[in-house]
Amino acid sequence: MEPFALSAAEAARLIRDRQLSAEELVRSCLSRIAARDAEVKAWLFLDPDLAIRRARELDKLPPKGPLHGIPFGVKDVIDTADMPTTQNSPIYPDAMIGRDAACVAVARQSGALILGKTDTVEFASGGRKALTRNPFNLKHTPGGSSSGSGAAVGDFQVPLAFGTQTAGSHIRPASFNNLYGMKPSWSLASREGLRMSAASLDTVGWFGRSVADMALVAEAFRLPGLDAPAVGVKGLRVGLCRSPVWDRIEPAGAAALEAAARRLEAAGAIVEPLELPADFAGLPAARDLIGRHEGAASFLPEYLGAPHLLAADIRERVEARAAQDPAAVLAAYNLADRCRPVFDALFGPKLDVVLTPAAPGEAPEGLHTVGNWIFNVIWTLLHVPCIGIPAIRGPRGLPVGVQIVGPRLSDGKLLAIAAAVAPVIDSEPDWARKALLG
Amino acid sequence: MEPFALSAAEAARLIRDRQLSAEELVRSCLSRIAARDAEVKAWLFLDPDLAIRRARELDKLPPKGPLHGIPFGVKDVIDTADMPTTQNSPIYPDAMIGRDAACVAVARQSGALILGKTDTVEFASGGRKALTRNPFNLKHTPGGSSSGSGAAVGDFQVPLAFGTQTAGSHIRPASFNNLYGMKPSWSLASREGLRMSAASLDTVGWFGRSVADMALVAEAFRLPGLDAPAVGVKGLRVGLCRSPVWDRIEPAGAAALEAAARRLEAAGAIVEPLELPADFAGLPAARDLIGRHEGAASFLPEYLGAPHLLAADIRERVEARAAQDPAAVLAAYNLADRCRPVFDALFGPKLDVVLTPAAPGEAPEGLHTVGNWIFNVIWTLLHVPCIGIPAIRGPRGLPVGVQIVGPRLSDGKLLAIAAAVAPVIDSEPDWARKALLG
Repeated sequence: MEPFALSAAEAARLIRDRQLSAEELVRSCLSRIAARDAEVKAWLFLDPDLAIRRARELDKLPPKGPLHGIPFGVKDVIDTADMPTTQNSPIYPDAMIGRDAACVAVARQSGALILGKTDTVEFASGGRKALTRNPFNLKHTPGGSSSGSGAAVGDFQVPLAFGTQTAGSHIRPASFNNLYGMKPSWSLASREGLRMSAASLDTVGWFGRSVADMALVAEAFRLPGLDAPAVGVKGLRVGLCRSPVWDRIEPAGAAALEAAARRLEAAGAIVEPLELPADFAGLPAARDLIGRHEGAASFLPEYLGAPHLLAADIRERVEARAAQDPAAVLAAYNLADRCRPVFDALFGPKLDVVLTPAAPGEAPEGLHTVGNWIFNVIWTLLHVPCIGIPAIRGPRGLPVGVQIVGPRLSDGKLLAIAAAVAPVIDSEPDWARKALLG
Repeated sequence: MEPFALSAAEAARLIRDRQLSAEELVRSCLSRIAARDAEVKAWLFLDPDLAIRRARELDKLPPKGPLHGIPFGVKDVIDTADMPTTQNSPIYPDAMIGRDAACVAVARQSGALILGKTDTVEFASGGRKALTRNPFNLKHTPGGSSSGSGAAVGDFQVPLAFGTQTAGSHIRPASFNNLYGMKPSWSLASREGLRMSAASLDTVGWFGRSVADMALVAEAFRLPGLDAPAVGVKGLRVGLCRSPVWDRIEPAGAAALEAAARRLEAAGAIVEPLELPADFAGLPAARDLIGRHEGAASFLPEYLGAPHLLAADIRERVEARAAQDPAAVLAAYNLADRCRPVFDALFGPKLDVVLTPAAPGEAPEGLHTVGNWIFNVIWTLLHVPCIGIPAIRGPRGLPVGVQIVGPRLSDGKLLAIAAAVAPVIDSEPDWARKALLG
């Protein structure tokens, strides 16, 4: 098997055991990129020579941390000291920011090899779409706004990548690209140096190809609770949450959720429908209003400096604030603030984890769209940890995942639950997926 | 009168009317700095030639916005594209970031002349103090962490400057340096490019020497509600809030609050004691815990990369997270989330504005301290707008201010109230202050 097909956790172990070098791994990823990326178009910036130089340096060092020698893609709304950060905006065509974003610095300090920058929706917020195509069907979107990061990891071009989620930009692309994706609790991983869109919503996340990959990055971020005891599926209390936006589900999304639930039940889990309290139905609209309100502050600099180069929908976000009713904005904040502890309190003896759609269904056709984030926004606004898990293939052969969700700050326990349920939910074991690579 | 003694609003009007040039103004500020800053030590970076060049460019342009030609100091935890950003940390001795923080970009796009970088507590968070001294008595602290910005504006070295507040770093230095200071509602002015310390608390603010100065910057940020109708003091309902931490007040702080209340009453305001609901007493401890929790994520990059160059108290913040009880952290968030709408709802027919201490008393002696932020933390955590107003001189001749506070997103109305109450509260009219300059 080519090194590029290894998961991050597998590759990290081999590198630690000196059975694989960082240079071999990155050369393998670069050859995969060379073979595939003309079609997939995941990358906005890539410097193969720099990558190989870095790999050689890492091969000479004792292990710096859990990610030693692992190539890592970075969504291009996240700053990198040694590569441009364009935000897919014509305002910043070659911007060199002299400092790594916090997440990039943490990855680097943990031994990761920052491989390049991946395409994104403009400012991860609107306007221009990425040019990236879905590796499972080039006519379809890979999702967004973390388009390039999702496609690059899904296409085995890089084992790990950072994405971000303000509405549903991380967990949805995980589903569309057959990936594992983790969005940690809002306060746990610094978002500094990730382009601000909505200060109380933006969250950095990571893509990989196994739960162990998710845990590896979580370890680099020193998320609390990673010593949580292992969990068994037998007797696990799973709340099957169709969510207040179930009317937006597509057959493939419903099938993925039902398949995951059925498989968990067959493995001994106790799966019961979970109805969220009535006022949670207001959360999607609240998230939208908060995102617009906070976005007006975030994009004022570009609005003042280069309005003609700013997407119309972002311009409108800035202009709309003057007419926003402060009482409505506060009502949105207050609703979210009331719902968070209510959601946390659902967990206990009767509920271990929530199982809910990661996306409406398969990735839609066309690059004019990035799909619908409606199944993600409640969890983003609640600040809770989410882990996306692949589940089935839909009628068009495209992957469809689900997500599991825990209460705030339970990230370590959620990873333990993911380690138990993922082998049950994920229908396509690793060997099969790798065989697809030919 | 020397141009440096003008308030920002006065200077902006003269420049707009072509009675003063940006070059004349900045040369006057530079001469004041040359005469004074060897003692005050407000600045970490200053490039007089660059400033004069910028002023000449601005003098050739039609007005760019409300701040056209006005020199603006920037706390050195805030990024500037053309000047280093050291964060007063030995980790970043000459860091050039290549991009303006959002607040700097907004000021520049509004015509401001970014004059230089002002000294700060390390990362605005702990460890190393600024070298800055209080311009009213060089043996005393100017407060912190916005030490240099407060002292520079207080000493008439620059008419406006940005500070930041995570606990009490903005409104307290306003009090210590005889200044007006505005901390807007948390979500209204983008904090992007301001060093993250605590993501849900950090707020950018501005210092000036009049309410009109505060409004000028608010206009640049397009804060909502700036068209609020003018307010009269007669009949104004003022809640005199000694606050749950009144046991920490000093005689000079108590005298300032009493003087402000008495003067407002004499001018026809209805001043009544305001007792906050009992559970607000838990807010200072909640803010502290949230600050530590979020700080652990913020400082992980430096902790991993250069722990020996990081202040011990910041290192400890990172290390402590593993042992933090998530339930306690969530209880802190939940308390703040419950108190915010309760505070907002106090306002209405019976209450227009809250009057409360800006600091315990005069600036303490010594540069080993930046004074106590205990009278600021509740308002920071509540995300409410605050405006600091000078009130009296204390027994050592040092200024002591108060602050007025409104409900979230009422910034425009609070400015209107400030315009009414400041001439009543502020005992030292502008002419008297300027006379002090000799």
